[in-house]
Amino acid sequence: MAMSFPSELYASRMRQLRPSTIREILKVAAQPEIISFAGGLPAPELFPVDAVRAAADEVLTRSGREALQYGPSEGFPALREWIAHEMQSRGIQAAPADVLVTNGSQQVLDLVAKLFINPGDVVLTENPTYLAAIQAFQALEARFVPVPTDGEGLIPEALPELIKQHRPKFLYTIPNFQNPTGVTLSAKRRQALARIAAEHQLMVLEDDPYGKLRYSGTEVPPIKHWDEAGCVLYASTFSKTIAPGLRLGWIAAPADVFSRLLILKQAADLHTSGFDQRVALAYLTGNDQSVHLERIRHAYGERFAVMDAALKVEMPANYQWTKPEGGMFLWLTGPVELDGLKLLEQAIKHQVAFVPGRDFFPTDGGSNYLRLNFSNSNPERIREGVRRLGALCRVG
Amino acid sequence: MAMSFPSELYASRMRQLRPSTIREILKVAAQPEIISFAGGLPAPELFPVDAVRAAADEVLTRSGREALQYGPSEGFPALREWIAHEMQSRGIQAAPADVLVTNGSQQVLDLVAKLFINPGDVVLTENPTYLAAIQAFQALEARFVPVPTDGEGLIPEALPELIKQHRPKFLYTIPNFQNPTGVTLSAKRRQALARIAAEHQLMVLEDDPYGKLRYSGTEVPPIKHWDEAGCVLYASTFSKTIAPGLRLGWIAAPADVFSRLLILKQAADLHTSGFDQRVALAYLTGNDQSVHLERIRHAYGERFAVMDAALKVEMPANYQWTKPEGGMFLWLTGPVELDGLKLLEQAIKHQVAFVPGRDFFPTDGGSNYLRLNFSNSNPERIREGVRRLGALCRVG
Repeated sequence: MAMSFPSELYASRMRQLRPSTIREILKVAAQPEIISFAGGLPAPELFPVDAVRAAADEVLTRSGREALQYGPSEGFPALREWIAHEMQSRGIQAAPADVLVTNGSQQVLDLVAKLFINPGDVVLTENPTYLAAIQAFQALEARFVPVPTDGEGLIPEALPELIKQHRPKFLYTIPNFQNPTGVTLSAKRRQALARIAAEHQLMVLEDDPYGKLRYSGTEVPPIKHWDEAGCVLYASTFSKTIAPGLRLGWIAAPADVFSRLLILKQAADLHTSGFDQRVALAYLTGNDQSVHLERIRHAYGERFAVMDAALKVEMPANYQWTKPEGGMFLWLTGPVELDGLKLLEQAIKHQVAFVPGRDFFPTDGGSNYLRLNFSNSNPERIREGVRRLGALCRVG
Repeated sequence: MAMSFPSELYASRMRQLRPSTIREILKVAAQPEIISFAGGLPAPELFPVDAVRAAADEVLTRSGREALQYGPSEGFPALREWIAHEMQSRGIQAAPADVLVTNGSQQVLDLVAKLFINPGDVVLTENPTYLAAIQAFQALEARFVPVPTDGEGLIPEALPELIKQHRPKFLYTIPNFQNPTGVTLSAKRRQALARIAAEHQLMVLEDDPYGKLRYSGTEVPPIKHWDEAGCVLYASTFSKTIAPGLRLGWIAAPADVFSRLLILKQAADLHTSGFDQRVALAYLTGNDQSVHLERIRHAYGERFAVMDAALKVEMPANYQWTKPEGGMFLWLTGPVELDGLKLLEQAIKHQVAFVPGRDFFPTDGGSNYLRLNFSNSNPERIREGVRRLGALCRVG
């Protein structure tokens, strides 16, 4: 029989934290009979399972004791080197010493929030933005101020006024195939953003989980590429290029910030799984990444095209959606009177799922939006799922 | 060229956080020519490397896609079941639904601190206590109030007055073979503690990483065994029974607390490596734990005995130390004028390392203490290391 503790026992940050709707929906949507456009799940049939098995075997055969022992909080040195090299190939000047390995890039959000946020401090974000970033920053009692956006992403020229008015601790942005909208920040705006950030000493957290998933259009260098002032923190992950179950991400940060993040990482969990880090590195060095990534890009490009074509056929005229050139999501805008949550209830009954847009808005609004994931369903199920969804939207 | 950010940019919690001395020392002590009694490292030659390799192979062969996909924040269901059963064998009434899987038990400390601590809130601890618990709680700006202790652990009768005076958010305790002292809380005191906690609605975080490492004396049930009021949170880990590189720990909590910890876990890193969780479970169900644990206990018991005997021979008469019945550490008390940090500088020059006691004291004092680890060196190196240390102490 558990005692009931008074709510004052809990820290004040718990007041604004809610369970993630997405993850609750995912539990329902995980039933195989439901066609789910809800989760941000990569296609598991494209996971390099055999190569990971060979890598795990190699790691435990060659250096089992080291892989299973405690390791450095910074991360496994050889993996940090690989990551620095990878960032160089993305147009970023980075050294192994800049790289902190984390439990997926989600942990970057937690550590960065801990480093900068006192209760009530402002974070600038796109509007809408990544749901779990809102949660991570809320857990440190951040306040959110949205930056105006359009089809090319956030508008850098709006920043000086926002900086002056709100003294934000940092700007959080997902420049490539943003979650949830799929929108990509143009090269011109990235340059402008880097310049304005330097001028106004604005810290920028550039979150780039999807950059390697471009299936059309031309690659754009990261914001960090233009960051001469050292005010852009760059985060990325292996969740979409290898597999999310390994929980491996990273942040690259200048020495001042790095040393503080390292203390917070130690306090949070000592270090990221040394076994998973070594397995990832053995996989990365033993296999041709370009071949694997090309397979993923091809599949996701095809799935997007199938979803886009199906939406054209099935959706009523008063629905629009984005046309991302990569990533895993597109963003549907319905008529203003649409209630995404009610539509979801109906959709679940018809065995199709998505994420209502509301939770992606850190402040308010957004009930007439839907986020659709296209990476986790095959073309046939995408067509059928969109057919079911379209039928509901035409009725509603 | 990195911009220099003003220190006001960082959150106030960063003011009291320092890099862990232990982990800095460990970097030096990791050189093979140094005999290190510093880290809290298990004996790597006892890691079940072959069995883990077989487990990894089995997981990736049977359910590779599931193991590499995103998973539930609560943890892998079958592992939660195994853990609930394991806790029952330790004398705790626990269901799988109570179990949250974390990145080592270190992450429990971070999540529990986030759940309860507003800046300035009080945590009661043993004095000295686990260094990285101090860090984790400091990262949420806790204040520390030490509970009086003696050779049987903390003194429960001192709690009512401390509760009245400081209104602590919780008591943090390591009842078995405490880190750093090796002291075990007696059964009588555990019962008294559970009773007093219930009476005063005191939340208790019982951290039990070492309970399975008893090499002499009689097993004592966890405090949680006597917790009828549901105010004891029980945490443990696979770091000492399988291997720390997998980063797997857990907390068992009543529903109210569990649901809130789950939100914080989601925000922190979505979930713990699904691959590592499945590998651990495959290892645990495919191998006889009692045989493996018996090997560890036997080795650590022998190493403690060797260290204890060597200390008797080598140390000056004004040094005393604890005689733990399990775990990985003993605690040396030197003459009041001893400066542990200075001794360490000398010791490193003579290629032996330990952790000075000071950092284990959340408030002040402690410069004349040393923590010695005996699990990570073989008997020969223990004898030689203690010989070097003894020579320095006789001079100093």
